[in-house]
Amino acid sequence: MLDQKFLDYLEKNYGITFNNKKLIERAMTHSSFDNEHKELGIGNYERLEFLGDAVLEINISRYLFEKYPQLPEGKLTRLRSDIVRTDSFAKFAKQIQIDKYLLIGKGEEKQGARQRHTLLEDIFEAFNGALYLDQGNEAVEEFLESVVYPHIDSGEFSEDTDFKTHLQEKLQQSGEVEIDYKVIDEEGPDHDKKFEIELIVNDKILSKGFGYSKKHAEQMAAKQALEEL
Amino acid sequence: MLDQKFLDYLEKNYGITFNNKKLIERAMTHSSFDNEHKELGIGNYERLEFLGDAVLEINISRYLFEKYPQLPEGKLTRLRSDIVRTDSFAKFAKQIQIDKYLLIGKGEEKQGARQRHTLLEDIFEAFNGALYLDQGNEAVEEFLESVVYPHIDSGEFSEDTDFKTHLQEKLQQSGEVEIDYKVIDEEGPDHDKKFEIELIVNDKILSKGFGYSKKHAEQMAAKQALEEL
Repeated sequence: MLDQKFLDYLEKNYGITFNNKKLIERAMTHSSFDNEHKELGIGNYERLEFLGDAVLEINISRYLFEKYPQLPEGKLTRLRSDIVRTDSFAKFAKQIQIDKYLLIGKGEEKQGARQRHTLLEDIFEAFNGALYLDQGNEAVEEFLESVVYPHIDSGEFSEDTDFKTHLQEKLQQSGEVEIDYKVIDEEGPDHDKKFEIELIVNDKILSKGFGYSKKHAEQMAAKQALEEL
Repeated sequence: MLDQKFLDYLEKNYGITFNNKKLIERAMTHSSFDNEHKELGIGNYERLEFLGDAVLEINISRYLFEKYPQLPEGKLTRLRSDIVRTDSFAKFAKQIQIDKYLLIGKGEEKQGARQRHTLLEDIFEAFNGALYLDQGNEAVEEFLESVVYPHIDSGEFSEDTDFKTHLQEKLQQSGEVEIDYKVIDEEGPDHDKKFEIELIVNDKILSKGFGYSKKHAEQMAAKQALEEL
């Protein structure tokens, strides 16, 4: 019952092909749909959500631990809880079109469950649980590298990861400066665009940055400049 | 400054030899000790605790997910939160002698921090974080198999894992029965004892169980009997 288009979408955009199709189908299915279609024997996402919750937690924790060696435990914990949050996970779920393809019963559909953030969060977790069982943690790492980590690197979750602000503060310590970020290249298809940005300070090119969005590329340029200062 | 005896203890009892001794030393060190001995440059356990918390969560989650395929998500979540709890982790910390060898400052020592459950929990998490970084998740799995999972299998955390009670209820459905658990063998040194138990119902041997404690072996015998009934 899971739309083949979703499987094609995952393959095309993230290089993910599930060996066990029943697993990804279960991850995408709410109990209300399962109850209406008992004859299909799909089950629902709930146990996979239990596992996926922990899968996301360890991967995001390890990423933060390694990426921000300067951050003390308290800031890491705050940052993690800003990422591992209903609204963030719901956003990631939409990013991979879970909202479009998830399976819910008719009553739930009428009540607008398809857009409910807690449901999208649950299924995003279940999706990662299914991927983990199907292909191991490396596949999850790769997936998160393209869907979640760029948002962290872009400084969306905490001022501690906001390199642009850090750089500005640092540069302005010795007086006013003019900081400019300029897109110099943009390539790839819509779903996999890459941007290249030049960071220009007082008319001098200071660094370059690549990223999945303009903001991401700007942050990467600022990060590199900070490392070189 | 970490006592070599602790490293010897880990090697002898759990086959764990840290490649990076600084990592396990840091995991065992409270900030109060680090502050009193800045010249040693040890650091403290806090960042490792951040990581270890998630390492324990994923391993215990996966263990529960696979071991109890019949449990729904709600029960799995309750069971996990009963295990991933201050008092449980403090008990595991003592089991591997963390309380004996952790490094704390003089003031904290006077205030009895060495026996404080929240500190023991933190260091147990940091220990697992260090092991994960030093030797990967497989080493953590092996460690938990000998220190944590037997307690889960013994039914200590939830009636859902209490096979003895389940078996008793099942057997008594068709009238009164006499259930007896008898130790038939006991071997190994004190720190690595194994027990063998016979489960006898109405004078007939129903199953056998092996375990790290009498209770563990009894639960294993009950589990086997349940599977065969």
